[in-house]
Amino acid sequence: MSVAHETPLESLISRRGRNVPGLRMGDPRKSAELISFYAGFPDRDSLPAATVIEATRDALEAEGEWALQYGHGLGNRRLAGILLAKLKRDFGIDAEPDQLLITAGASQAIGLAIEALVDWGDTVITEVPTWMGAVRAFQNAGATAVGVPMNSGGTDVDALEATLARLRGDGITPKFIYTIPNFQNPTGVSTPRDRRERIVELAHEYGTFIFEDDAYADLRYAGERIAPIYTLDSRGTTVYFGTLSKTLGAGMRLGWAVGHPSLINKMGALKVDGSTNVFGTYVAAAWIPQYLDDHIDELRTIYQSRRDIMLAALEQHMPPGTSWTQPDGGFFVWVTLPDGIDTTAMAPQARERGVEYLPGAACHVNGDGHNTLRLSFSFARDAEIPEGIRILGEIIAGELAESGQRPATS
Amino acid sequence: MSVAHETPLESLISRRGRNVPGLRMGDPRKSAELISFYAGFPDRDSLPAATVIEATRDALEAEGEWALQYGHGLGNRRLAGILLAKLKRDFGIDAEPDQLLITAGASQAIGLAIEALVDWGDTVITEVPTWMGAVRAFQNAGATAVGVPMNSGGTDVDALEATLARLRGDGITPKFIYTIPNFQNPTGVSTPRDRRERIVELAHEYGTFIFEDDAYADLRYAGERIAPIYTLDSRGTTVYFGTLSKTLGAGMRLGWAVGHPSLINKMGALKVDGSTNVFGTYVAAAWIPQYLDDHIDELRTIYQSRRDIMLAALEQHMPPGTSWTQPDGGFFVWVTLPDGIDTTAMAPQARERGVEYLPGAACHVNGDGHNTLRLSFSFARDAEIPEGIRILGEIIAGELAESGQRPATS
Repeated sequence: MSVAHETPLESLISRRGRNVPGLRMGDPRKSAELISFYAGFPDRDSLPAATVIEATRDALEAEGEWALQYGHGLGNRRLAGILLAKLKRDFGIDAEPDQLLITAGASQAIGLAIEALVDWGDTVITEVPTWMGAVRAFQNAGATAVGVPMNSGGTDVDALEATLARLRGDGITPKFIYTIPNFQNPTGVSTPRDRRERIVELAHEYGTFIFEDDAYADLRYAGERIAPIYTLDSRGTTVYFGTLSKTLGAGMRLGWAVGHPSLINKMGALKVDGSTNVFGTYVAAAWIPQYLDDHIDELRTIYQSRRDIMLAALEQHMPPGTSWTQPDGGFFVWVTLPDGIDTTAMAPQARERGVEYLPGAACHVNGDGHNTLRLSFSFARDAEIPEGIRILGEIIAGELAESGQRPATS
Repeated sequence: MSVAHETPLESLISRRGRNVPGLRMGDPRKSAELISFYAGFPDRDSLPAATVIEATRDALEAEGEWALQYGHGLGNRRLAGILLAKLKRDFGIDAEPDQLLITAGASQAIGLAIEALVDWGDTVITEVPTWMGAVRAFQNAGATAVGVPMNSGGTDVDALEATLARLRGDGITPKFIYTIPNFQNPTGVSTPRDRRERIVELAHEYGTFIFEDDAYADLRYAGERIAPIYTLDSRGTTVYFGTLSKTLGAGMRLGWAVGHPSLINKMGALKVDGSTNVFGTYVAAAWIPQYLDDHIDELRTIYQSRRDIMLAALEQHMPPGTSWTQPDGGFFVWVTLPDGIDTTAMAPQARERGVEYLPGAACHVNGDGHNTLRLSFSFARDAEIPEGIRILGEIIAGELAESGQRPATS
């Protein structure tokens, strides 16, 4: 991308336009040239191209005149019904059609919920570390994001309470608490039921919304399902976000928000892009009933195996003094290196040797996390994972040696 | 849609969220139950379902692993290349790939350009009447939209100059001038080359951007092509918007912006929804080279015929004192009724009799236009158009009689 010149009429750029960092979305075609642990890209080889061809034929032969037309303002209502039935069956989420807005991935839904609530300078609460895309969405809207730590047991609800109390003392009501309770991005850690209940109590006590991002809900490889926060909140102050990106395929760009009907209506009205991907919603509505459940079973097998391969490789190749999480699902392992290692500075060295990961600083809102990194086990192929981790282990050991920190004996 | 209850935590709603009117997007399935002149919905019967099935097969068999994956931040680069080649061949628009952002319809592109430029309370200039979606997008962003009239010769450039001068006198630089120079939505009027050149001169003189919305570019039925404003602006201050909604199909939700690379980069960075409809872009990239040109030829025949049918029916059925435009392309005829008729108030009566149209007030930013209405000739079938116009003529004549205005002898 050449951005050689200043924008003409630079003085006309908005606060948002001045504040936004450059375009930084990963490109999976580039990542495929490396052993890539960088992004939450789904596995290449299992993407269901053949069945999507069939579903497209089914959808367009039956209803081509509607699939290629403008659509309903909240998104394809048949797909909404299918999604609501699945949310009820699998997660106990009970909602009406006017509570579900179909969006371009969960990311657009989160962006719209932010628009409906956040004025420039408003405060929001987020887990730290958290999903890089949310960090950017907060920034775009001019939100001041206050971090609450994730620890090995999930969201630190004591820190959440202390933060809410401190903000109240400063006269600030945060607009929402953003949380990823299942297999959190980036830590892979899940927040147990008692802490979810505590988050709801605190949100009610302090009068704020909860944004529950459940992008990885279907991809559990161990442990029992935990009730979504949405189902624990009797006051309608939780907005629940989901996506087909990790199951049917990210390329469909289909996600959703479930929430209070009047908030969902506002979010739909703020969404000036026509009905979401009408063609894709008709294809998805034909595909899901025939193929989704089996496909999720297949994906669980694939990703569970990759997780296990990655955890074994970390055990084998990481130098002493390094620790990492043990996710029950999702795509991510979070690695913490000894203090003094800067994973942002280390990234070019890894790329040079054919490996990429996400430096942990990108998942922080407070400039922390320099000694952390996120490893995705979703995209690299099974056989690449041990080699990639071996290379990372060597690089980290080299960094430790250079910084004068002998690896401690483990 | 039941929005029975107040939003919980109403006080947390943002300025945008409070300001936005309710969800109001048309639903083509509902419109299909009437003789509908309401929306810019493309013709149902010519939507290319069969060839899209073939293109989907081609695209997914060749590149399913990328079509169902996340994509490039500016959108599918192959599709960008195809679109740029067409823009150059057909419209003389010469731009590089980093100047083209693929979006969910032109509407999302316009929304992003607004985000990159407009802070709450900023001033923008728009033709009046104009596209209802733009009016809503301005409102969402808190822009103060100042209207410049459309007249029978296109944008009133003298009024534009006077408006810019007046604003300058008030110390205000508008962020952009929004114009639809071809077959304007809603008037159907085109702005000729000399006025386009004048718009560019004025934009340069007063230091503002031009937003050129060219959604109907391919659908000309009479007259010679006029150079896009983008090609007349040597300073890179025009952002050009296009769409596949009126050709390949609105359900694809694919549009684009072409502009200065640094502005396009900002717009892409502000777009937190992943790469636009990756699946659809791969299908479109397979479909366009094989089918688009022939399909546009077919559409021109269909819509030219519908335009002619509608103009003949207006001639036959409209009471004296009514006037309407004669579009060279696009989807719309703009009707002006005698003063005192309120087309918003009249709309339920028309729906009662099975006909719908767009009341002109929705296309105004200043509360005017109550005696105007927009008729779309794109969606109603040939045989329905004369009947629908006959009914509208009767209703208008009845309104005139009731208001005591005898139709003048024509």
